[in-house]
Amino acid sequence: MINVLTEKIKKLEAPIVVGLDPTMKFVPEHIKKQAFAEYGETMKGAAEAVWLFNKGIVDAVCDLVPAVKPQIAMYEQFGVEGMYAFQKTVAYCKEKGLVVIGDIKRGDIGSTSDAYAVGHLGQVQVGDTVCRGFDEDFATVNPYLGSDGVKPFIEVCKKEKKGLFILVKTSNPSSGEFQDRLVLPEGCTDAAKARPLYEVVGEKVAEWAADHMGEAYSYIGAVVGATYPEMGKVLRRIMPKSYILVPGYGAQGGKGKDLKHFFNEDGLGAIINSSRGIIAAYQQEAYAKYGAENYADASRAAVLDMKEDIKEGIFS
Amino acid sequence: MINVLTEKIKKLEAPIVVGLDPTMKFVPEHIKKQAFAEYGETMKGAAEAVWLFNKGIVDAVCDLVPAVKPQIAMYEQFGVEGMYAFQKTVAYCKEKGLVVIGDIKRGDIGSTSDAYAVGHLGQVQVGDTVCRGFDEDFATVNPYLGSDGVKPFIEVCKKEKKGLFILVKTSNPSSGEFQDRLVLPEGCTDAAKARPLYEVVGEKVAEWAADHMGEAYSYIGAVVGATYPEMGKVLRRIMPKSYILVPGYGAQGGKGKDLKHFFNEDGLGAIINSSRGIIAAYQQEAYAKYGAENYADASRAAVLDMKEDIKEGIFS
Repeated sequence: MINVLTEKIKKLEAPIVVGLDPTMKFVPEHIKKQAFAEYGETMKGAAEAVWLFNKGIVDAVCDLVPAVKPQIAMYEQFGVEGMYAFQKTVAYCKEKGLVVIGDIKRGDIGSTSDAYAVGHLGQVQVGDTVCRGFDEDFATVNPYLGSDGVKPFIEVCKKEKKGLFILVKTSNPSSGEFQDRLVLPEGCTDAAKARPLYEVVGEKVAEWAADHMGEAYSYIGAVVGATYPEMGKVLRRIMPKSYILVPGYGAQGGKGKDLKHFFNEDGLGAIINSSRGIIAAYQQEAYAKYGAENYADASRAAVLDMKEDIKEGIFS
Repeated sequence: MINVLTEKIKKLEAPIVVGLDPTMKFVPEHIKKQAFAEYGETMKGAAEAVWLFNKGIVDAVCDLVPAVKPQIAMYEQFGVEGMYAFQKTVAYCKEKGLVVIGDIKRGDIGSTSDAYAVGHLGQVQVGDTVCRGFDEDFATVNPYLGSDGVKPFIEVCKKEKKGLFILVKTSNPSSGEFQDRLVLPEGCTDAAKARPLYEVVGEKVAEWAADHMGEAYSYIGAVVGATYPEMGKVLRRIMPKSYILVPGYGAQGGKGKDLKHFFNEDGLGAIINSSRGIIAAYQQEAYAKYGAENYADASRAAVLDMKEDIKEGIFS
């Protein structure tokens, strides 16, 4: 799947992933009206609204981008019905030829991580039958529990030729609280040799990446926020074979010119996420002319602009 | 809710939480047969089997323990149908008077953590209507993203008088890979002053805990594995007002005598989880006499034995 993703990025000249993170305030009135007319102001109504909203965007951008990244929390907030909308979104995006990165940020002790891995990326045995759950192509994983929390995901990925993006340095303002703390090398008492925790995690990701290689890149990638370009530069070197999934572009403050160092010299190795900036483009001044009725066209225009901004950023 | 939990622990003399982590291999044949007869070997069949299994255990132990902790991964592996079984389990346990700790280990950037928080602990606005999702009493949270990933959970908890258990030192063998790394205090270059990351996280938990106090204890607790009793001792001092949720007892190797230092001098402040050891008791030699048909009675016997083991451990 990492080879597929790489090929699609090259062909479309778009290292872009659209974050499908719908909240009710992004969904245009006419869609809410339609969904609530059918299911009422219920979880089912909300889930239907989210699904209809997503479908419009996916139809409008699926020929422009290689991948989408539904953020599961935005579905999970609507309970079981929301999870159904998540599943439906994943399946529809795959049908449209998009690579689907499930932004689930799961991670637990071994046996539990295994359950997450089979539920999201693999298959589960029910009696003599094999079933599939959410069935994304990639998933994001939280590394706080260490190797035995990550390896069950890698094992399932090996079987399925799927991949991971492991949190290394996240895009949020307080990510440094733990991730930037200076850590002594094991067995070392020289404070001058201390390095930030995100580098230590990055090295571990490089190790895991070597264990599940695709052609040019590994199936095991990392998450590094666009909001920390200098750290991106260092982490790019530490994890040369890993794709970096870069959130924080656009609404969170990251700009095209900040992105250069997330890429390798081959022009590959990073994929930039934008969520609000694309899916709620019609609510921004720059795309207001499209109006809420044509929100999907506004999203398409925002993708085209993002593509230009990133191209300029990489080659500047 | 932390006051309710504390009162129940005192009344039942049982600082015990039963981990409802059903995998298919724990579910007795007669239950699988019943569920598959109705829904086939499908995700729905698996979810029904899990639900019937849980119901039996909950009915058998609900007068003995204050709380249960369903591990959501074990449900999520069965996709949307599994999530429905999770929701049904949460609702049933609450109906039976049990405090429900959703072991969800979520955590993300602010807006996303907020979505998880409303979905699991709070309420979500759908049009003019307010709906509730999974509606647990407590949730476990991963701290890797720092304060702005945790605070949205705390805000929802304040509104709802609910609580959290934040991962500090997890029970798994490789938890030390990042959690035990020695970290320099901010702005300090003296290697002798470096302390393990779990202590740094523990201090932050103590800070968050002070922000949302119940009567004697805070609504904000921590997760510290039974498998690391010496670290438990230190963390007990760092977070005096936080309940410690202690996994890793029993199947993962923790014993009653290891638990003493997780408790405060008032005999409170910790709640010990056992999952496999209770829900799959009938598969162990000690409880084999009950047989698979009476698996729930085996679970009841295992809870009674655990209660004794812990009492001896605390007062030894």
